[in-house]
Amino acid sequence: MKIPEVLLIEVEHAPGNLAKVLAAVGESGHTVEGLVAVSRTQDRTTWELTIELDDQEVSDVFERINAVPIARMLGRSDRVFIRHLGGKIRTTPTATITDLQTLRDIYTPGVARVCLAIRDDPDLAKRYTNIGRTVAIVTDGTAILGLGDIGARAGMPVMEGKAALFSQLAGISGVPILLDTKDPKRIIETVKAIAPSFGAIQLEDIAAPACFEIEASLAANLDIPVLHDDQHGTATVVLAAVMTACARSGVDLSAACVGQIGLGAAGLGIARLLHRHGVGNLLGADLREDALARLDAIGGERSDLEEVMARADVVIATTGVRGLIKPELVRERQVILALTNPDPEIEPHVALERGAAFAADGKNVNNVLAFPGLFRGALDAGAKHFTDAMLIAASQAIADGTDETQLVPAPLDTDVADAVGEAVARAAGESGEPIMMPGP
Amino acid sequence: MKIPEVLLIEVEHAPGNLAKVLAAVGESGHTVEGLVAVSRTQDRTTWELTIELDDQEVSDVFERINAVPIARMLGRSDRVFIRHLGGKIRTTPTATITDLQTLRDIYTPGVARVCLAIRDDPDLAKRYTNIGRTVAIVTDGTAILGLGDIGARAGMPVMEGKAALFSQLAGISGVPILLDTKDPKRIIETVKAIAPSFGAIQLEDIAAPACFEIEASLAANLDIPVLHDDQHGTATVVLAAVMTACARSGVDLSAACVGQIGLGAAGLGIARLLHRHGVGNLLGADLREDALARLDAIGGERSDLEEVMARADVVIATTGVRGLIKPELVRERQVILALTNPDPEIEPHVALERGAAFAADGKNVNNVLAFPGLFRGALDAGAKHFTDAMLIAASQAIADGTDETQLVPAPLDTDVADAVGEAVARAAGESGEPIMMPGP
Repeated sequence: MKIPEVLLIEVEHAPGNLAKVLAAVGESGHTVEGLVAVSRTQDRTTWELTIELDDQEVSDVFERINAVPIARMLGRSDRVFIRHLGGKIRTTPTATITDLQTLRDIYTPGVARVCLAIRDDPDLAKRYTNIGRTVAIVTDGTAILGLGDIGARAGMPVMEGKAALFSQLAGISGVPILLDTKDPKRIIETVKAIAPSFGAIQLEDIAAPACFEIEASLAANLDIPVLHDDQHGTATVVLAAVMTACARSGVDLSAACVGQIGLGAAGLGIARLLHRHGVGNLLGADLREDALARLDAIGGERSDLEEVMARADVVIATTGVRGLIKPELVRERQVILALTNPDPEIEPHVALERGAAFAADGKNVNNVLAFPGLFRGALDAGAKHFTDAMLIAASQAIADGTDETQLVPAPLDTDVADAVGEAVARAAGESGEPIMMPGP
Repeated sequence: MKIPEVLLIEVEHAPGNLAKVLAAVGESGHTVEGLVAVSRTQDRTTWELTIELDDQEVSDVFERINAVPIARMLGRSDRVFIRHLGGKIRTTPTATITDLQTLRDIYTPGVARVCLAIRDDPDLAKRYTNIGRTVAIVTDGTAILGLGDIGARAGMPVMEGKAALFSQLAGISGVPILLDTKDPKRIIETVKAIAPSFGAIQLEDIAAPACFEIEASLAANLDIPVLHDDQHGTATVVLAAVMTACARSGVDLSAACVGQIGLGAAGLGIARLLHRHGVGNLLGADLREDALARLDAIGGERSDLEEVMARADVVIATTGVRGLIKPELVRERQVILALTNPDPEIEPHVALERGAAFAADGKNVNNVLAFPGLFRGALDAGAKHFTDAMLIAASQAIADGTDETQLVPAPLDTDVADAVGEAVARAAGESGEPIMMPGP
C-alpha cells in the first residue's frame, strides 16, 4: 500500500535547480504532495518533499534524486512521527483548581450535591457534566484506513486524530475506545455496558460484515445516536460530491441512473443513502455475494462493471483497485467519481478526455467534512438516533458550502462544520427511523 | 446525609455584625466551612457561607440567621452548580491543526505510517499515542462518596473531578467510564475488552464485596496496573497520617497494637496495608461476618469496639457513625484517628481532653494526595501492577511532605504529587506481587 513518505533533499541554490529535482520525481511516476523548506545555508536548502510511495519504490526515488548533480538525498524526515510524539490528545480540566474552596466545590464534599441532583433528575447530567458533548470513538482495529486488520492499538493514531478534529471543528470531546475483541456479540455487549459515559457512539474502522450487525444492534438498544463513520459519514460526503457533480454537469439526480462499482462498507453506505435520497435507478457491482444481497435489500439492481459503465449516468467507484476502469468504457456526458485513494479507478483527466461531463478522484473526499457536524447536530438536538434526513441535510450543507472550483469544501473549514451541525440539528426535529444497513 | 450547602446572607456594615451572624450559625451546631464576600453596596455585604447540613436542618438555620436583626437570608447559592455547568473536563488536541499539511500528517493519509510502525512494534504506542498517560476511571455507581448506590451517571461529577485532578497534579488524561451493570462478571469482561485504550485502570466507588472480586480478576488478567482507589488510595493516605501521628506522639508503629473500628472497603484496605507495612498486632471490629473473614485472611484479630479502645495504642475509625466512640473509652497516651466525614466518631478535642497523645479527624485525609502520584509513578515506570512497596513508598513521601502543623499535606500541593510519583516509580523497580484483598 502507498502511504505518504517525507524525503529530506538538499539542493544547491541556483535558478531552475528545484525544478530539476521535481522533474526527477515526476519521471519516477510520483506526484508531489507537499514541499517545505526546513533549513537554509549560504549555498543550499534542505527540503521536505512529501510523496506517496510503497516501500519498494523508495530506493528508486532515492537513486533518481541522487542522480541530479545539484541534489543530494539526506534520508527520510521524521516529521509525521514528530507530530505524533506523546500522542495528539489530552483530557484537560475546564478550569484550574487554584484553592481549597474550589477543590471542595468540584470534588468532595461539594460535588455530592450535584451527584444527588442528577440522581433525582437524570437529565441534569447534560447540564452539569460533559457527557452530552462526549463521543466514544470505538474500533476493533479490523479495518484501519486501507491497512486492514492491524489491531486496535495500532489504529490509535487514527482515533486520536478523529478526537483532535472533533474538538477543533465541533467542540466535542472524543474518547477513543480500543477493543481487544473482534467478536460482534462481545463488541455489542461492551459498548452497551459503557454507553452511559457518552452522548453518542461513533463506530470506526470496523470491517464488513461485522460492522452492519454491530451498528444495527447498538442503534436498536441504545437511546443515544450511533453511527458507523465508514459507512454513513463517508456516504454523507460522497452524496455531497454527487450533488455538486450533478449540478455542475446538468444531471437530474432523481431521474438519473447511478452505478456503483465496489460495495464494501463505504460503497453500501453510499448506495443506501442515494436510494433514500430518491435515486430510483441504482446499479451495483461487486464480487461478493453478501454485498450483492445487501444491495438487493437496499433496492438496488445487481450489475457488473461493464454494464454499469454502459448504462449509468453517474458512476461511483470505491473498489480500492487502481486503474480498474479502462478509458474505453467511459461514455460521453457521464459523471465519474473514482474515489479510491491514493490512486483512483481512472484518472479524472483521462475520463474527461474520453468525453465525461464531469470527473473527480477521492483526494478531497474527506469524512472530516461530515462527522464533526453530524455529531454536533445530533447532540445539540438531543437526538436518540441518526436518521436519513439528518445525513441528507448534512450532505446538502456540505454541497452548499462548496465553491465553484471545488468538488467539496476544504476539510478544515469551520464554517462548513457549523453549517452541517445546524442543518443536522434542524433535521433531527423531523421524525425518522434510525439509519441501518438492511440485509440478510 | 450532610453535604455542603452554600447560603447567601446579606449583613449590614457595622463592627461586630458578622460575628453576630456566625454566632447564630454556631448556636445551630454547625461549623463554618467557608465564607466569601460576593457583593458589596454602600451599607451592606452579601456573603456566601458554606456549612454542612442535611435538608431537615436548612430551615432551622434560615430562621436563626433571620432572627439576627442586622442580617437577612437571601437563599442558597448556586456556586457549586455554576462550577459544574457544562462539565469539568474536555478532550483537547495537543496542537491546533492549522493547515492541510498538518491535517495530512496527523490524520489521513500520513497517520497510516505511524499506525504501521505500531503494528510492527507495539511498544511504540507509548511513544506516539497518549495511551501510556491515560487512566480509565471506572465506576458502576454503587458506592458514590458516602451517598451509596446512586447510579453511575449520577456519579459522573466525582469521576470528572478525579479526571481534572489527574490532569492538574500529574499530567494524566483521566477517562471516566460509567458502567450500566453492577454484575461483577460483566464489569470484569467489559473492562478487559476496553483495556487496550488505557495505560492503567482506576476502579472507583464500587461497593464491597464486589470491588474485591473485580480488582482481583482484573489485576490477574491485565498487564496494566489496576487499583481500587477507595481501598488502596485511601489506605495510602491513612498510612501516611498514621506515620505522622506516631512520629508526633513517639509511638513505634511496628511494635504498637493498632485497632480498627469499621472494616468496609476503606477499613480493610487500611488494615491490609498496615499489616504489609509490618504492624503485627492488628485488631479489627465490624458487624459483618464477611468483613471479619477478610480481616482473618489479612492476619488481623477479630475484636469489638470496647476491646479495641481498651487494648490499641493506635485507633483508626472508618465507620460512618458520628460520635460512635464515647469519651470515657479513650485511654491516656492513645493515638486516635476518627476519620468519618463530615462528623467523626469522636471530636479530636474531646479525645485530647481525655488524655489521648494525638487525635485527628478525617477532614484533611483526602485521597487526592495519593492517586495522581500513584498512577504517575506506575505509568512512568512501566509497571504491570501496583505492589505494596509502591503504596508504602507513596505513604512515606506524603508523610515526608507534611509540615509540623499538619496531619497530611495540603491537597493541591504539586510538590507532594511529584514526590509521590517519583517514590512510586522508584519502588516499582522492586519485585512484588500485585496488591489484592485476600479473603473468602
